[in-house]
Amino acid sequence: MGTAGKGGRVALATESPVPSDIACAHSVSPVNIGIIARGLGLDESEYDCYGKCKAKVKLSAYQNRVGDESKGEGKYVVVTGITPTPLGEGKSTTTVGLAQALGAHYDELENKVVACVRQPSQGPTFGIKGGAAGGGYSQVIPMEEFNLHMTGDIHAITAANNLLAAAIDTRIFHESTQKDEALFNRVVPLKKGKRVVSKSMQMRLERLGLGDKPIEEFTQEDMARAARLNIDKSTVTWRRVLDTNDRFLRAVTIGQGPAEKGYNGETGFDITVASEIMAVLALTTSLGDMRERLGRMVVASDMDGNPVTAEDLNIAGALTVLMKDAIEPTLMQTLEATPVLVHAGPFANIAHGNSSIVADQIALKLVGDGGYVITEAGFGADIGFEKFCNIKCRYSSYKPDCAVIVATVRALKMHGGGPEVVAGRPLADEYLNEDIELVRSGCSNLMRHIGNIKKFGIPVVVALNAFASDTQAEQDVIKSASMEAGAFSVQVSNHHALGGAGALDLAGAVQQACSSPEKDFKFLYPLDLPIKSKIWTIAKEIYHASDVKYSEEAEKKIELYTKQGFDKLPMCMAKTQYSFSDNAKLKGAPTDFTISVDDVRASVGAGFLFPILGKMPTIPGLPTRPCFFDIDIDTETGDIVGLS
Amino acid sequence: MGTAGKGGRVALATESPVPSDIACAHSVSPVNIGIIARGLGLDESEYDCYGKCKAKVKLSAYQNRVGDESKGEGKYVVVTGITPTPLGEGKSTTTVGLAQALGAHYDELENKVVACVRQPSQGPTFGIKGGAAGGGYSQVIPMEEFNLHMTGDIHAITAANNLLAAAIDTRIFHESTQKDEALFNRVVPLKKGKRVVSKSMQMRLERLGLGDKPIEEFTQEDMARAARLNIDKSTVTWRRVLDTNDRFLRAVTIGQGPAEKGYNGETGFDITVASEIMAVLALTTSLGDMRERLGRMVVASDMDGNPVTAEDLNIAGALTVLMKDAIEPTLMQTLEATPVLVHAGPFANIAHGNSSIVADQIALKLVGDGGYVITEAGFGADIGFEKFCNIKCRYSSYKPDCAVIVATVRALKMHGGGPEVVAGRPLADEYLNEDIELVRSGCSNLMRHIGNIKKFGIPVVVALNAFASDTQAEQDVIKSASMEAGAFSVQVSNHHALGGAGALDLAGAVQQACSSPEKDFKFLYPLDLPIKSKIWTIAKEIYHASDVKYSEEAEKKIELYTKQGFDKLPMCMAKTQYSFSDNAKLKGAPTDFTISVDDVRASVGAGFLFPILGKMPTIPGLPTRPCFFDIDIDTETGDIVGLS
Repeated sequence: MGTAGKGGRVALATESPVPSDIACAHSVSPVNIGIIARGLGLDESEYDCYGKCKAKVKLSAYQNRVGDESKGEGKYVVVTGITPTPLGEGKSTTTVGLAQALGAHYDELENKVVACVRQPSQGPTFGIKGGAAGGGYSQVIPMEEFNLHMTGDIHAITAANNLLAAAIDTRIFHESTQKDEALFNRVVPLKKGKRVVSKSMQMRLERLGLGDKPIEEFTQEDMARAARLNIDKSTVTWRRVLDTNDRFLRAVTIGQGPAEKGYNGETGFDITVASEIMAVLALTTSLGDMRERLGRMVVASDMDGNPVTAEDLNIAGALTVLMKDAIEPTLMQTLEATPVLVHAGPFANIAHGNSSIVADQIALKLVGDGGYVITEAGFGADIGFEKFCNIKCRYSSYKPDCAVIVATVRALKMHGGGPEVVAGRPLADEYLNEDIELVRSGCSNLMRHIGNIKKFGIPVVVALNAFASDTQAEQDVIKSASMEAGAFSVQVSNHHALGGAGALDLAGAVQQACSSPEKDFKFLYPLDLPIKSKIWTIAKEIYHASDVKYSEEAEKKIELYTKQGFDKLPMCMAKTQYSFSDNAKLKGAPTDFTISVDDVRASVGAGFLFPILGKMPTIPGLPTRPCFFDIDIDTETGDIVGLS
Repeated sequence: MGTAGKGGRVALATESPVPSDIACAHSVSPVNIGIIARGLGLDESEYDCYGKCKAKVKLSAYQNRVGDESKGEGKYVVVTGITPTPLGEGKSTTTVGLAQALGAHYDELENKVVACVRQPSQGPTFGIKGGAAGGGYSQVIPMEEFNLHMTGDIHAITAANNLLAAAIDTRIFHESTQKDEALFNRVVPLKKGKRVVSKSMQMRLERLGLGDKPIEEFTQEDMARAARLNIDKSTVTWRRVLDTNDRFLRAVTIGQGPAEKGYNGETGFDITVASEIMAVLALTTSLGDMRERLGRMVVASDMDGNPVTAEDLNIAGALTVLMKDAIEPTLMQTLEATPVLVHAGPFANIAHGNSSIVADQIALKLVGDGGYVITEAGFGADIGFEKFCNIKCRYSSYKPDCAVIVATVRALKMHGGGPEVVAGRPLADEYLNEDIELVRSGCSNLMRHIGNIKKFGIPVVVALNAFASDTQAEQDVIKSASMEAGAFSVQVSNHHALGGAGALDLAGAVQQACSSPEKDFKFLYPLDLPIKSKIWTIAKEIYHASDVKYSEEAEKKIELYTKQGFDKLPMCMAKTQYSFSDNAKLKGAPTDFTISVDDVRASVGAGFLFPILGKMPTIPGLPTRPCFFDIDIDTETGDIVGLS
């Protein structure tokens, strides 16, 4: 266990060239997490240690500070990115590096900076991508604990999601084999002369107008209405999940055992982070709110076309119980001992791809007036940032003080017409040598993102994530283009190579932007617009599309959701992250294109509809030689090797 | 958080009649787990707190004490049971109650008693059975944390098991689509002019006689042999798992997505505790040993009939990494603040149903000379205790000092011919009123178990788990029968109603039994007997069967495993727990019956073969009104309600 240096900090001894991520991560000893927690002003009753390097922060850390206006709340900075290459442009690394710069290099900000990041899925960790703790000298540590299990939140979601799935199929099965009265007597049993009415059942009875009627006076019809959900099997949208890259589970037929024969059906598995429960976790604001959202989750329609919810299945309480620890963010630290709250990691395409509201709430209170919370939005700004504003901020009521957009010379060259970038294959020469023209041409992508962000009424700082192969001339092109597009500031940042010391300029620009008076945060659309108008607003203002086409299926769903009253929810567009359009091959800043909405689905509990543009993979596969080939443990020391 | 009373103890204020389990569990405040840990002499470096009531104990707690013979090791007590009713006869409750009696009521034993119990599956907690923390005033607390997630061990097994499953199917898929050289170049890639040979691949090359041959000299055939596992898809035995009661996953067809078409196959899910990885966790003795066992797990045969292992799939290291925290037992406490190590919970039919060796190792060292470790074996003594001796003790090298067998008047009445006992239905009158004759007749079951246990050369104490409906005369019949069968002692125990104070007589008898000089622990069979001889020995000596029949499938497997060299493993009989025979309806002490071995399977990593007698369900279903109907959370206080 390391000891805190000056002001609780850890001094980095950076090496050049930058060693492997795990070597950087091991270059310092983490500070005991209790020291980090106390530095933030947390009382011992407000957190639970999980080993020496992780702590769960209780929601009371926020609630205890709600009344206390003297301390105020910090500045709220969101980190987003340009349209990325498949290699990623360093949003997490920049989020962590910026937090290190502010928290460990400005004396007055010590204990007043928190980074809020997402928990990664274990699927990619063992698959193609590896871990997600940042990179180089800007990382969350211990990176092994960050990438593996952490404090079990994703596992809790797997358990909750799959309990609900089992409950749906079993309910259909039992309803099909029991007569109304027998079913009612099982669901609302008589115990010692008294009917046992669960909380969910009481809610259902009230909804059916049977809340006050004595059960002994129930007619056969009352019993049937109360006990029978009449789920239309063909409408079940709830799938099972695993936090594993298992492509063979994408489409499966279940119920093929002899005892279930005749009740089989086609379904599939998603990766756990694609579960609606993950989206609920990310968007909830309190335990009570989570109980309600989990109950509102719609899993199917009944034979009359009414939505069937988790509450109807009497399972919302049990799901909340399974999620009661997961709602607490996990406190960890950067390589320079800046506090990090790790919490939630909803899929960035079929969900909104942002870390949790709860973590941001706690962080903003803990850093207080004059402090900074750096939070991260997934994918490019056309997706993650748009959803951050229109979905996350709508539910949290927070307004960002500034946005940081991460750009790289590499990605802008790709947008300027450079050859395809493929993970695992060597980069083409254009990416390794100076090519001013490619950069200049690719700046269209960055410039459009800057313009888009400004529509939300906040200043935008461009973080040019430096690579050793970048040239001054290339960087200068990006600087001019950024300012021309209306950026508040543009800064070259070397946090990968140098940690917080490499991001001091960026940190200074962010502080200035946050203090800038020119701020007027606004949503892009009001919720009471019809579904198609909300989609069109996003398509026109953010993607710069010329038209939107709807499939027959999409039209049908829009009609259904409007009828069911879900048309007042915000839109969570499920679109490729590799283009402004729905065609991953259209780089730069395309115009004159039509987007195609193939389907519209609902995450009613999380609180959004998600129009689907093209095919969205919801569970990845494993390559021939997955990351797990190299991952092993030194059985003498217990040290993990080969994790990247 | 409660404060430790006299000598670190918590004084129980018991109520009569005994309130609900959760009310009993909440009747005291748990002591901070750090106090419990320090009471056992653990150094802060030897454990990690997970919140205020749980701690993971590191394997160093054992290793650090291996050299130190001055402290010695405690007495080793195993708790088993008679053939149970479906309601269970209170083995866990007795294990906990006995630990409370010894640890909290004998001054000189304070900090010298540890109970070792299994972690329960979440499936039954939300299904029919409810939790498994004991009952009444003999429980592990907080029972909510014990029953839900705990410290994530079962979730880690789910993750590891399913990563391996995905690896098998993906490997078959990729081998089928790639030529030898391309496959080899992917599996042993050239990076910066050097071949990347994983540790597993190096082991494989050595096994193939290619360990020393320079890779640049590899022939096409060498490459094919190294890279191609040639898995015979029809022989894959590895299934996926979930810790959920989901009957619709018992048999499924996977790989039905458009990209996997043509590679689909039939498989199924087991409940996570049925995973071989759970059995490995329970039987391993160190991190290095776990790495080897996980690597030895056989998942299929290749086209030539050779076993294909996890090591062949290059995944043993990654599986060990996923399991590296799970190998550490979780320290909790009883209602009277006696330390409890909770660890592993392998299925008691297709696996061996005992808590872990690692926990017992640590506990025996921590209590030291003069102390007691109470460990629990699942199901009745014909299953759990037989496997405790012949499998667990074989791998641990520990010898039990005494066995406690738990009996109830209720179960003995059933064995004497009483009506069927069904979970969820009211008990018949025979079970609520005195019926000496039923008890007398049913004692045959208890007496046979006592005789069986004595074959292993250790004294056996009968714990008659008292119910309010028991009469003195009924208890007297059991006492006489026990002594007649050769029990060391028989004691009525009231720990459910009174906590440790109710089990003082039992505790006294256990101390005497452990000091008894008449001990000569021995296994029932040597490992070098042929498979069928080992099975026959168990069938004859423990079940008292007159014959064993083998199906064609079983004969084939016995031949295969003998050819593959797995015939030297111990036998882990998969048999109903409701009868000495393989017919659950044969109660009491049946004779003149034949058992039928329908199949034989192998858990080579865990280290046993499991002959299958009849149909073993490996994933339960949910009833019409599962436990989750009543489980909810008070969103103001965070308290869980309805968990039983």
